[in-house]
This record gives sequence, C-alpha cells and structure tokens, in this order.
Amino acid sequence: MYFASDNSGPVHPEVLAALARANDGYAMGYGADAIMDDVRDRIRTLFEAPEAAVYLVATGTAANSLALATMCQPWQTVFCTPVAHIHEDECNAPEFFSGGAKLTLVPGTDKMDPAALRATIEAEETRGVHGPQRGPVSLTQVTERGSVYSLAEIEALCAVARDYALPVYMDGARFSNALARLNCSPADMTWKAGVDIVSFGGTKNGLMGVEAVILLDPEKAWEFELRRKRGAHLFSKHRYLSAQMLAYLDGDLWLRSARMANAAAAKLADGLRAAGIGFAHSPDANMLFPTMPRRVHQKLHAAGAVYHLWSGTLDGGDPEELLTARLVCDWSVTDDAVATFLSHVK
Amino acid sequence: MYFASDNSGPVHPEVLAALARANDGYAMGYGADAIMDDVRDRIRTLFEAPEAAVYLVATGTAANSLALATMCQPWQTVFCTPVAHIHEDECNAPEFFSGGAKLTLVPGTDKMDPAALRATIEAEETRGVHGPQRGPVSLTQVTERGSVYSLAEIEALCAVARDYALPVYMDGARFSNALARLNCSPADMTWKAGVDIVSFGGTKNGLMGVEAVILLDPEKAWEFELRRKRGAHLFSKHRYLSAQMLAYLDGDLWLRSARMANAAAAKLADGLRAAGIGFAHSPDANMLFPTMPRRVHQKLHAAGAVYHLWSGTLDGGDPEELLTARLVCDWSVTDDAVATFLSHVK
Amino acid sequence: MYFASDNSGPVHPEVLAALARANDGYAMGYGADAIMDDVRDRIRTLFEAPEAAVYLVATGTAANSLALATMCQPWQTVFCTPVAHIHEDECNAPEFFSGGAKLTLVPGTDKMDPAALRATIEAEETRGVHGPQRGPVSLTQVTERGSVYSLAEIEALCAVARDYALPVYMDGARFSNALARLNCSPADMTWKAGVDIVSFGGTKNGLMGVEAVILLDPEKAWEFELRRKRGAHLFSKHRYLSAQMLAYLDGDLWLRSARMANAAAAKLADGLRAAGIGFAHSPDANMLFPTMPRRVHQKLHAAGAVYHLWSGTLDGGDPEELLTARLVCDWSVTDDAVATFLSHVK
Amino acid sequence: MYFASDNSGPVHPEVLAALARANDGYAMGYGADAIMDDVRDRIRTLFEAPEAAVYLVATGTAANSLALATMCQPWQTVFCTPVAHIHEDECNAPEFFSGGAKLTLVPGTDKMDPAALRATIEAEETRGVHGPQRGPVSLTQVTERGSVYSLAEIEALCAVARDYALPVYMDGARFSNALARLNCSPADMTWKAGVDIVSFGGTKNGLMGVEAVILLDPEKAWEFELRRKRGAHLFSKHRYLSAQMLAYLDGDLWLRSARMANAAAAKLADGLRAAGIGFAHSPDANMLFPTMPRRVHQKLHAAGAVYHLWSGTLDGGDPEELLTARLVCDWSVTDDAVATFLSHVK
Repeated sequence: MYFASDNSGPVHPEVLAALARANDGYAMGYGADAIMDDVRDRIRTLFEAPEAAVYLVATGTAANSLALATMCQPWQTVFCTPVAHIHEDECNAPEFFSGGAKLTLVPGTDKMDPAALRATIEAEETRGVHGPQRGPVSLTQVTERGSVYSLAEIEALCAVARDYALPVYMDGARFSNALARLNCSPADMTWKAGVDIVSFGGTKNGLMGVEAVILLDPEKAWEFELRRKRGAHLFSKHRYLSAQMLAYLDGDLWLRSARMANAAAAKLADGLRAAGIGFAHSPDANMLFPTMPRRVHQKLHAAGAVYHLWSGTLDGGDPEELLTARLVCDWSVTDDAVATFLSHVK
Repeated sequence: MYFASDNSGPVHPEVLAALARANDGYAMGYGADAIMDDVRDRIRTLFEAPEAAVYLVATGTAANSLALATMCQPWQTVFCTPVAHIHEDECNAPEFFSGGAKLTLVPGTDKMDPAALRATIEAEETRGVHGPQRGPVSLTQVTERGSVYSLAEIEALCAVARDYALPVYMDGARFSNALARLNCSPADMTWKAGVDIVSFGGTKNGLMGVEAVILLDPEKAWEFELRRKRGAHLFSKHRYLSAQMLAYLDGDLWLRSARMANAAAAKLADGLRAAGIGFAHSPDANMLFPTMPRRVHQKLHAAGAVYHLWSGTLDGGDPEELLTARLVCDWSVTDDAVATFLSHVK
Repeated sequence: MYFASDNSGPVHPEVLAALARANDGYAMGYGADAIMDDVRDRIRTLFEAPEAAVYLVATGTAANSLALATMCQPWQTVFCTPVAHIHEDECNAPEFFSGGAKLTLVPGTDKMDPAALRATIEAEETRGVHGPQRGPVSLTQVTERGSVYSLAEIEALCAVARDYALPVYMDGARFSNALARLNCSPADMTWKAGVDIVSFGGTKNGLMGVEAVILLDPEKAWEFELRRKRGAHLFSKHRYLSAQMLAYLDGDLWLRSARMANAAAAKLADGLRAAGIGFAHSPDANMLFPTMPRRVHQKLHAAGAVYHLWSGTLDGGDPEELLTARLVCDWSVTDDAVATFLSHVK
Repeated sequence: MYFASDNSGPVHPEVLAALARANDGYAMGYGADAIMDDVRDRIRTLFEAPEAAVYLVATGTAANSLALATMCQPWQTVFCTPVAHIHEDECNAPEFFSGGAKLTLVPGTDKMDPAALRATIEAEETRGVHGPQRGPVSLTQVTERGSVYSLAEIEALCAVARDYALPVYMDGARFSNALARLNCSPADMTWKAGVDIVSFGGTKNGLMGVEAVILLDPEKAWEFELRRKRGAHLFSKHRYLSAQMLAYLDGDLWLRSARMANAAAAKLADGLRAAGIGFAHSPDANMLFPTMPRRVHQKLHAAGAVYHLWSGTLDGGDPEELLTARLVCDWSVTDDAVATFLSHVK
C-alpha cells in the first residue's frame, strides 16, 4: 500500500535489462554514444518532428530549469500556476538557471485558465523598462493536482501565449500518463497544439532517472547544450541514460507503464467513489486527492498505508474532519495493494 | 585498445548487481533511502570523520561546482592551476554555481607549486574592495596530467592556504587512483593534510555516474543540500545512486578497481619506456602522456587504438615529429589490450 | 501643475550650493572623503545608532537590491506586497542582485497586514529542501500607494518576522515623508520597531540622486561594501554624493522638504475632498490617489496638468466613469499650482 | 601636488554651471528628459554614427559591466589583458553582470598584442561544449598603464577578433586623453577601426560621475536598457547626468580638459626625464609610471606629494632602490604643482 509518490517505486525490469545490455565494452561519452543516435531518431519519429533537438537529463528539475532558461531572459517573467512544481518544489532552480527571472502566478488552484492567463499577461509589462518583461508560459501536464489538460485546453492556452508572441513550455514529468488518458499522439499534445519545448518524463514512470527535453524548434539547440554542460547535467557515461530511454521507447514501454499506473489509480478512484469519498481535484491520470475523515486516514496509516496528507494532520482533532490525501500510483502498484487499501476505507 | 578515457569503459558487474538488488519495492526518495544511511556511515568510517556530511551527485562537474560554490562567495576568486578541470572543462560551471566568482590561475603546467600559490595569493587582494577577494584553493588529485601529489605536497599547499585562512577543496574525480598510488588512508590524504571538502569520485572508476561530496566540517551541510536541490542535482530515485556507492564501498571495490587501472597503466608505461618513449608528465596513476613520433601514432590509429592526441595532429607533417598522447586506463583494460598496443609501438 | 512624480522636480538649492562648496581641490575617492565621515557620524546620531554602518548609493533600486541581497540567500524568498516597488518596478533587480531569490507576495492592495504576512510565511517552507526557504520581510514606508504605516503597525509586522527569525528591510524611498507624518524619531520608526536595514531616501525629496543605506547591525557591513562595488555602485568621486547627503542633514533639510511636500499634498487632498472627490488609498503623505470622473481628468490634462492615470484611459468611454489618478508632490510644489489644479476640479 | 588619481580632482566649473541651469522646473525622468535628446544627437554626430544607441551611466564599472554583459553569453569568456580594470579592479562585476562569464587573460604587461590575442583565442574553445566559448575582446584606451594604442594597433586587434567573429569592446574611461594624443576623430578610434561598443568616459575628465555607453550597432539597444534598469543604473533624475554630458560636449570641453591633463603629464614627464628618471611604461597620455629611488619618493612624500607607489614600500630598505610610482594628472593640475613636484626630484 505505497502511494506516496510515483518516484518511490522500482525501476521497470526491462530498463534494468537494457542497462545490462548497454554495459558492453567502450562507448563514446557525453551523448556521442550510438544508443543516443537511436533514441534521437525514435523520439523524432514518435513526436513527428524530424528537426527536433532531443537531449537527456537525469532529473525533472534539470529538464524544467534548463528548458525555461533557454526560453527566458533574466529580465522576463515565466507565467505559471501557484501550484506549479517550478514554483513550489524546485528551491528557486528556475530563478537560478535563468539568471534571476521571475515567476508570475496565474491565479487558480489547479489547471491554468486561458482567461486568467490573458489577464495576468495583460497586467504584466505595463511599465516599460521598469517592470519584468513578459516571458514563457509554463504548463504542467499531468498537473500537480492530477488533472489532465484536454487538447482544446492546451490549444486555448497556447493561443493566448501566441497573441503575445510568448513561447510555451510543457513540463511533462507525467507526459505519458496524460497521453494515456487523452489517447492522442505526442504531436497532438505538443507542437500541433502550440507547445515549443516539452519534457518527456521517464523517472516517474519506471526509469531510474531520465527525462528527455525536446526542442521542437532546434534553433536554440546549441545554447541548450551549453546550458546543460554548464549546469553540470551532461553525463560522461551518457550511454546509461540513453539505454534507459531506449528501453522506454521499445515496445512503447512508456505508454504501457503509464496505462498500468492510470488503471491502478482508476481502480482506486472507483473504489473510493463507491465508498462515498469525494475528490479535491479531478482524478484524471495516476494521482488522486481524495477527501476522507481523519479516522479513515488513521486506520489506513495504522494498517501500513504510505501516502502524504495534503491538508491537516493525522493526529488530534475531530475524527470526522475531512482531510485531503495525495495518492499516487506508478506502474508497479498491484491489484492487491489497491484492494487492501480500499478494504480499510469501507 | 581503448585508452580514450576512464569514463568510456563499462560499469563494474558488482555495481549492476547492486542496482538490481536495490530495485525491490518502494523506497523513500531524495536521499532518505536506507541504503544512503549505510553509505553515509561507511564513508564516515572510511574517512575517519564521524561528523562529516556526505552527499551524492551524479557528475564530477556537479561535485566540483556545488562544493566550490559552498566554499566561495561571489566576490572571491578560486585558486587553481591553468590545467584544472574546473577551469578548462566545465563551461564556466564554477562561475555559474558560485554566482560569478573568478578563477585565478597559479602558474604551472601540472601540479600546483606551494611557492607559486603563495605568490599568487599575495598578488591578489591588494586593492581592498576593488579587487576580487581571496577564496578557496582547489587541488585535483590525481591531477589532470596524471600526476599524484604526495602527502607532503598536499600538506604544503594546505599550509599556504591556512596562512591566509582559505579553505581547500580536493577534486577527487580520481581519488581512488591517487590513494592506490600513495598507499595511505583517505584521512591522510584529506583532513589530516588540511583538506576541507573532497569529492570521492566513482564515475571514472567503474560506477555509472556517482560522486560523493564529503564536507569534513558539516557546518555548511544544509547550505550544500539547498544548493544541490536548486542546482537540480537532488535525485528523486536516489536509492540507485546510493546502491552504486554502496557497491563501491563493499569489499573496497573502489580500491580494487583503482589498483587494476593503475596496474594496467604501469604496464603500459613500462612497455613504452622499454621502447625508448618519454613522458610529458610523470605517469603516477592511470593516465599517461607519452611523447611518440607521428608515425607511431599513425600506426597505432591504423591498428584501431583509440586515444586523444594532446598536441599536434595525426595527419601531415614530419613523421618523426614527437606528439604527446593522453592514454587513460580504467579497471576494465586487459593485459591483451596493453600488449597489443605495445606491439605496435616497438 | 506637475504632479507626475517626486523625482521630476528640481534639486533643492541648498544641495546645489553644497555641491559647489564640495568642489574644491582634491578629495580621496570611493567613500574615503572627509565629508562622508561627517555624514556617517550625523546619520548615526540621527538614528541613535552609534554602531550602524552607513553607505550611500545613487538610486533607490540600488539601495533596495543591495540591501535585500545582503539579507537574503539565493534559495530564500522575500516577503513583500503585490504593489511593492521591488516587485513591480525594478525589472527583476532584486532577483539579479540576490543571485536568484524569489519574491513571495503577501496578499493585499496596499499596506502589508500582519495576519496575512503570518499566513504567507506559514504557507512557505513546508517542503523542506524542495521549496524556497523563508527570507526577509520588506516593507515600504511611505507605501507605493501613499499610505504610512503607524509605529504600531510596523512593530506588529516586525513581531511576525521575529517569530520566524526573519530580518526586516524598510524601503525608505519616502522615509522622510513618513516620518514627517508620524512625527516620531528615525529610531522609533526603524530599529526600535524591529527594522534591521533601512534606506533613507533623498532622491525623491530634493537630492540629485542619493540614498543612504543604514545597516543598524553592522555585522554584514563588509559584505555590503563588496556587493556595492561589484554592483558598480561605488562612486569614485564619492564626495559629490556625500555633499548632497550632508546638505540633506544640515538644518534638517530632509524633514523640511518632506513637510513641504506633505503640506502641498494635504492641501490638494483637502481641496479634492471639498469638491466631493474620494480616494482609492488613504492620502497620508505626499502621494494621492483621487478617483475622479473622466471628464475632470480630461479638463485637467487640457489645462496642462501632468500626472499619471492609475486606472483607465483618458480618451473614449463614459465621461462620468471614475478613474483613479496618482498625484505626487515634492518640496517644490507651489500653492499656486495646487490652487490652479483645484480650480479645474470644481 | 596631488597626482593620486584623475578621479580625485574637482569637477570642471562649466559642469557645475550646467547642473545649475538644468535645475529648473520639472523634467521627465529615466532618460526621457529633453537634454538627453540633445546629448544623443550630439554624440551621434561626434562619432559620425547616426544610428548608434547612446546611454548614460554613472560609473566606469557600470559602463564596462553592462556593455560586456550585453556582448557576452554566460558560457563565454572575455579576452583582456592581465592588467585590465575589468579583471583587477571591479570585484568580479563583469562576472556578476554577465551571469558568470569568464575572463581569459592575454599575456602581456600593458597593451594587448595581436599575436598574443590570436594565440589565446586559438587556445580557447578547443573542447567543444566542455570549455568556455570564445566571447568579446576588451581593450582599454588609454591603457591601465598609461599607454595609448595607435589606430593601427586597434585595427590589428579588431582584425584578429573579426577573424573569429568576436565583438570588440573599448573601455574608454580615458577615451578623451587617448584621442587628444592621437589627434584623430572618435570614429577613427572606434567603429572605423572595428570597435562595436565603446564607453566615452567623463568621470576621470572633469565630470561628477557620467560615462556614455555607445552601441555603434543599435541592435541590442533594448537589451542594454533592460540590463541598465535591472542593474539599478537607470537614474530617475536623469537630467543631471544629461546636463553633465551636455556640458562635456559643449565647446569640446571633453577635449580641452583631456589636453590640459595630457599637457600637465607631458611637462611632468619632460622634467622627470631631464632629471634622468626612466619610466616603466610609455607615458602617452595623462598617466606616468616613473621609476625613482626610494629616497626621492620619501622626499616627495615628506613634501606633501600625494600619489601611489606601484611597486615596493616607502619605508625601509635601500634608499637607492628604484620604486615605480603612478602619477595621474587631470585637467585641474597646475603648472605650479608640476614645478614644485619636479623641484623635489632634482
């Protein structure tokens, strides 16, 4: 019953096997390995973007920070939601990598709203040289609250950005889970909708620690490479990143794993709903925010369930007080774990 | 005959096995895994430093940049040699992570000389608030030219730094190779000699991508943690870094591997010497800089040897012109490879 | 009828005279001039702070940015209001000088509220190493909307900051106007209330371009000096900054000028009130935000009045629509200008 | 007998008069004053550069740092001499403003040598993404050692830079003194020779604190404006900077003052030569580095002469030991001061 995070589960066996296969003899370092050539080709094909520049880094924060720094001047501001990972969970990494850009929060509690985005952009940069200048729009798909933007929603947000000639970044730490939900193509969810740079996350979906950053327009590819090296995110033994990503692409492991995670989450959501539990946010992919009485949380914890309370504290207070949990499923969650969890809720 | 770099060879099988063992069930992320607790304890024991703060990162540049940034204010300057990796090979990462500190070069062609260090420190900061302020001294052990500082040499450099109350960093990307050469204890080569922070490199010695950063005085431990996170170098699935380092410590794999690499290099050096070849730098550990006629380089390349020319170009020019090569051995270099290489030199 | 800004008016004649007096022979540069010694002593006396470190810079943004950078680590966040000059009007200078710190907005439309500050601080830094760390609280006195914090209000905010061991900065670009309003001592409004660093603004109050930064605790004085030099804000011909500040202190020119500006604003406010005009913010010092019908604004502009509309546009729309203006008085505003302006309002 | 620095002397009376004239009524702030329009036009005319972007800042370090940051990416390196002001005397300001670029020193003791520049450029950036990338070349005219580059020398250096497509910056803190020496036009010494951005210094030549930064190609003008604001170097009461610069241009005060300073220095040099004194560097403009016995320095100091020793210490040691002084003349140095100084040398 481990639902604390999709980065706490094990690496998929196919990935370990791929690492073992890659561990043969010598290979050029720093991304010049043959496996990376294959990875680049396959990602271009997958995204229907033959010119795209493709790079691997090992953490989601690296992907986000390097991409945003490449899109953003230090005197600009990034538009994101108040719950964005880049705002809340990266210890000012975007500010660091961009050389001191600002993040401007588009009001809201989960998904970014196009009208709110437009209003926020309008309010910024009315002061000429004095104020922060408008910079990129950053979306997270799946959002940090487990929601999935529809294609129409992404297109609407990108249209607002385009009205102001602002580039769009998609933090795709859970890209695969979103895509499994929407059942569209990677191209549909990115460049066809107006996204300029996207991270294609693997770490939360069965890899050991690899994210691809895809610059759909390769114009700033060399700048990205320099920023990656200077940020200490260029790996000498790069083949072990390449091998993970290749395994991820092989037989669509990325999609299979995401579907498993989403399916587990859907089962969990169904069971909770059946038990009369509501949700603070729409459980669209592999993350749920159910709202349950404190006594249920206490029972679950006593039974060994592991997850984070998103509001309130486990101990003390009214046993009937409703507290929100965050439950996250990865590919490895078993039916048994879900069933056992639900058995304690009823 | 692959002598291009010690980061081009395969990962040691014991490391892959450890990764597989670690891949079981759930584990807390971000360094809170149980394996890391074990790693921390063992490194403290190995370094005879029970209070030391121990952190893992995935690249040598991350280790160097984060350590130096923690030791150095943006208005200070780091003292290093003109051939230091931090100066030549990190695309200004130390300047980036430190927020714009300077690197001041202590003249020399390989090891740092204590008298030259003193003279360079003296020349700096004679201008009050106007000039850069004196900052940390950074040594590389093994040096970028394959030399190993003796304990007395390290002590002499640290004594100069101490005269000016400057902290000392040791870039230990090849720490194990140096230690295998000196046959001393990690404590002897670090804090007993006056080193404040050291990186204990694994990537060039059989790991996939892990370096430990050891703050012998833990006073700035929390600052280091914040810098690591903000630099996007804190891994969510940290257990896979921990597992590599644990395998490295198990049965002294770090020392066994370094001894294998050094032994291969020694055989290569002996054979080259026997063939009348000289060296541009003293071949103390696992890296050689032999000086051979162009025709020999051409013959070796034709035979499939892979390594970098450190001076000159393979093609054109006088066949007898002496060109320096850089040959690096890792743990996986075989006697056969050495013998074949030498057979082409004679 | 020029009410656009208190930095658009002329320099006070006593200041020009002081510059001429200072222009005699040679003087040591970079703050080592004898006039600065006098300035330092007098400011220490004025603030009843014999140990305070006192520095001069030439712009308000320099004062704010250098002070905040000295108080704030790059991984921290500064708490300020959404209308703070440091947030809206400095093109990310605080982010730049601090090396990438964040600004966290305490909700509100003018003055910072202690309860809102506490709630905002509480919400921040609940994520350990992942989120921004809590940093300084920054107040603007007079606020950017023309309000003046009472001593009790300052004390209440500082008490909240102290509960979390956070330092407090006071942006005193209009320090003198606030003090003229409160009729208290500089010590009362700063360190006795809990302020750690304050800027004592001169530029908006009759100087050419000088702000004093006063570190009431001198512990970080040398760091401030290095940051000032490195930010290119240390003047070689420093005596001309010193001379301005000395003139400002002579015979309390700072207070006389502020009283003149406040008195002009009060007359303006009284007249507007008499004409039935309301205010968007409390006109406490030398800045007013009256809300008047568009037709009145049009009439005033036609008559040559110069000021900024804070909401809406002069042209088009309903003539009766209420639009907010920002009117600012400096020491040089005449009774005539006020009377003429009011004559057009009636 | 004050020869310590050309920033220690008084402001020229014409400048003070201009400030008084400018101090009339209201003026738009932040560079939108009418005087600045005039200044811009006149500088464009003076430099025969009708498209040039012209900005004022208050310190030489601001001019240098903002210009270089505009020309240089954070992953690049600036080529300069080991005695460059930007390297020795700005407390890492160029590193700060550029976001962590490096400075690479072209070997030499005074002027930059074209062959040395070429060799240094060649040695840099041979490591692809790993090393610092080549960035702008920065020249100081008059050099920090008092020498003046001939037009041919500037052209030769710019030709080397152009071979590598690198932009050229001229630190013209003493631009006027160089031009007075060369007796050429500003266009000759800048864009006709290949310079891209130049600072036209006023502070060391009779102004209170103003330097013009001239972007001969205005492409990055808006970026420069944003960097200036964000660096806190945009003045609200900008007209007082404009007025100084206008006075400087009026009747060629810049050239008259520089000629007075150079003439005083020439008299000093002649007298020293007549007394058998040699020079460590060629005294081309308003700065001399005479080499005199310690006893002469002691006599001069006892007589009240004020200047810096560039080598050695006044007290102790052999009275006949030769010590180098730095003597700087500004426009205000009198014949009497020179004669008195020389009388003590003989």
